[in-house]
Amino acid sequence: MLKEHFLDRFHRNERLVGLSDGVFAIVLTLLVLELRIPQLGPHPDAAAMWAALKGIQSKLVGFLLSFLFVASVWFSHNQLFKLFDKVDNAMLWYNNFLLLVVCFIPFPTALIGEYPRNPVGITLFGCIWILVPLLIYVIGSRAYRKGYLHASVDLKRYRFLRRMSLVYAPISALPILLAWKAPTLAFLFYILMMIGGIAAGFFVKVLEE
Amino acid sequence: MLKEHFLDRFHRNERLVGLSDGVFAIVLTLLVLELRIPQLGPHPDAAAMWAALKGIQSKLVGFLLSFLFVASVWFSHNQLFKLFDKVDNAMLWYNNFLLLVVCFIPFPTALIGEYPRNPVGITLFGCIWILVPLLIYVIGSRAYRKGYLHASVDLKRYRFLRRMSLVYAPISALPILLAWKAPTLAFLFYILMMIGGIAAGFFVKVLEE
Amino acid sequence: MLKEHFLDRFHRNERLVGLSDGVFAIVLTLLVLELRIPQLGPHPDAAAMWAALKGIQSKLVGFLLSFLFVASVWFSHNQLFKLFDKVDNAMLWYNNFLLLVVCFIPFPTALIGEYPRNPVGITLFGCIWILVPLLIYVIGSRAYRKGYLHASVDLKRYRFLRRMSLVYAPISALPILLAWKAPTLAFLFYILMMIGGIAAGFFVKVLEE
Amino acid sequence: MLKEHFLDRFHRNERLVGLSDGVFAIVLTLLVLELRIPQLGPHPDAAAMWAALKGIQSKLVGFLLSFLFVASVWFSHNQLFKLFDKVDNAMLWYNNFLLLVVCFIPFPTALIGEYPRNPVGITLFGCIWILVPLLIYVIGSRAYRKGYLHASVDLKRYRFLRRMSLVYAPISALPILLAWKAPTLAFLFYILMMIGGIAAGFFVKVLEE
Repeated sequence: MLKEHFLDRFHRNERLVGLSDGVFAIVLTLLVLELRIPQLGPHPDAAAMWAALKGIQSKLVGFLLSFLFVASVWFSHNQLFKLFDKVDNAMLWYNNFLLLVVCFIPFPTALIGEYPRNPVGITLFGCIWILVPLLIYVIGSRAYRKGYLHASVDLKRYRFLRRMSLVYAPISALPILLAWKAPTLAFLFYILMMIGGIAAGFFVKVLEE
Repeated sequence: MLKEHFLDRFHRNERLVGLSDGVFAIVLTLLVLELRIPQLGPHPDAAAMWAALKGIQSKLVGFLLSFLFVASVWFSHNQLFKLFDKVDNAMLWYNNFLLLVVCFIPFPTALIGEYPRNPVGITLFGCIWILVPLLIYVIGSRAYRKGYLHASVDLKRYRFLRRMSLVYAPISALPILLAWKAPTLAFLFYILMMIGGIAAGFFVKVLEE
Repeated sequence: MLKEHFLDRFHRNERLVGLSDGVFAIVLTLLVLELRIPQLGPHPDAAAMWAALKGIQSKLVGFLLSFLFVASVWFSHNQLFKLFDKVDNAMLWYNNFLLLVVCFIPFPTALIGEYPRNPVGITLFGCIWILVPLLIYVIGSRAYRKGYLHASVDLKRYRFLRRMSLVYAPISALPILLAWKAPTLAFLFYILMMIGGIAAGFFVKVLEE
Repeated sequence: MLKEHFLDRFHRNERLVGLSDGVFAIVLTLLVLELRIPQLGPHPDAAAMWAALKGIQSKLVGFLLSFLFVASVWFSHNQLFKLFDKVDNAMLWYNNFLLLVVCFIPFPTALIGEYPRNPVGITLFGCIWILVPLLIYVIGSRAYRKGYLHASVDLKRYRFLRRMSLVYAPISALPILLAWKAPTLAFLFYILMMIGGIAAGFFVKVLEE
């Protein structure tokens, strides 16, 4: 009884969630640091200020997109880990790899914000869009195989959502090919995927209630 | 019983609070990074140092105001979410949008600190003052409509405070109009609103005890 | 019963602790950002590198001291808040003011690291040493007066420690006067006070066991 | 009974874990700030961009290694503290010293990334590799001596792992000597030790189940 209680506490691992939320919170706020206020003369008028802000427009858009994308990943991470009764060492490490990918998000986003017509930034961004669902699939599969899911989880629906995350990876690769012909179109593709994902998040339920 | 316990844990969503507190903590401390120490010669005397600090006076004031404003928003966020028994996906996303606005606060505050007589900074700052109470209203309304409030919440008082946050938004818009004639006055208006809000926070009670 | 449970959850306010730990963690790691690696030629030898590191020696010392000082304040904060059964709105705000002071610590520490013989940095640093125990006294007094202490707290010992924090404030002011004659001596005074505080933290017990 | 409950809450000290996770999360994401996007002309082509990214290749590798190393330390920290029923003041301070070392990790990693053939960076890096297992040994020993381990901990295995961390320290010192002859080899040594540590983390169990 005592040992079971200990093992239960040992495997619940609230620190996985604590570390992850910390990393998500920091990445969400990192990009504001990129938004340096424009250096103008001592008393600029309003028109000069608007013009200066237009000059950092791409950084403002980059901040907005990076925020929404990271928030989407947090949303999925949150939904997924709530289904588990326990996690093991391997899942801790898979989660660390996922956090590594999340930490990297500000870099290609800044690259796209600065050079929107260059395919390299979108290629790096696309790699993240491939890696995130793959790692979520790996984590979800291990929990399923090892029997770490809570008894109330609807297994049919779980398997469906897990398969969806596997389908998501190759679809995320398509815009990378497009990026070398029409980078703006490829980028719009990702923005639409993100908006779709956020909209789905409002309605999709992991459980029948 | 087992399923209810699972759903209860599922909907409590302590991670919403964990992510939010992380974002608030980072935004609170971000502005200190803006306070670069002055670059003087090898052995400046005390008078030269005071003069140099006076030169970054506006940044010091910006740091102070930004801190108190973000702390006020955290205070309201804290009071609000303690009243809920559960949150749903839509509320998770409304909260993400609120965090987006919070993350943006350091930018207009820095703009005002650097160019205090320019109306653009105050206009952006005012937009945040409009968006924050609106988003709090949206979150509070959904919780009310969906019945997520704890059974002990005084509904009459709750409706009153919710209506207050709706009244707050247009009042926050007034100084924006003023900003184009008298920016300093408009800024003082916001400082007074903030001090009033902090003072109210000391006394207002969400519950009769 | 239901209402009591709600009020208990309402007043426990774990978010005060969550926000505070976030701010402490960020301030603890902020100064590493100040440690920029030296810019040398393409293949510097070991001697050139040591020389370059000696050049940022004052920043390394500033990092170390700032870390230990903030860790000391966290230690006291941790010990204090564990004694409370509940906190109220006023205490939430007093704690916000304490966090404001904590967020400011990296600034004078960096100033001292850069200009160790200038009294201004030590004066600002000393103000923090005065404000921190005063705010801890104010928080501790309110909890005592309002009866928020846990029933097991040894009140005699509590009153003694509370009085100590009041004595601490004027003692912390002494080196400020010294700073204008002998800044290095004043700084050593603070370092000794900090080492003494850390050593005391190893042994002092808030409770008889 | 009341007092026991209070002492139990007092000594559990979840804030040690909260502060530590905050520090780990920040250090994990700090290095991305070092990855500044390359400054090229207004419309660089893909080839120019790849070339520019190759120029910051060492920083990208530094980011990756720093992340994995800090994640490894977090993993050990997580495993260790889950075994304790309580912590005391001395352990709080030993943990603060451990966090101090963790906060410092980005500095030598950046140094190695910038000057991979210089022995100084590897020497500093090696010191961290010596200090981390030593501090973990000190924390683990105190918990063992004072009887803070949970009753279900397998003491024989605990003593073995504790001894391992003591053996780890001198082995970590070997590459420092190597660094002055063959810095690249010394660095590879640490990478192999880290990969070995991560692989071991997948399989090693603190408890028989």
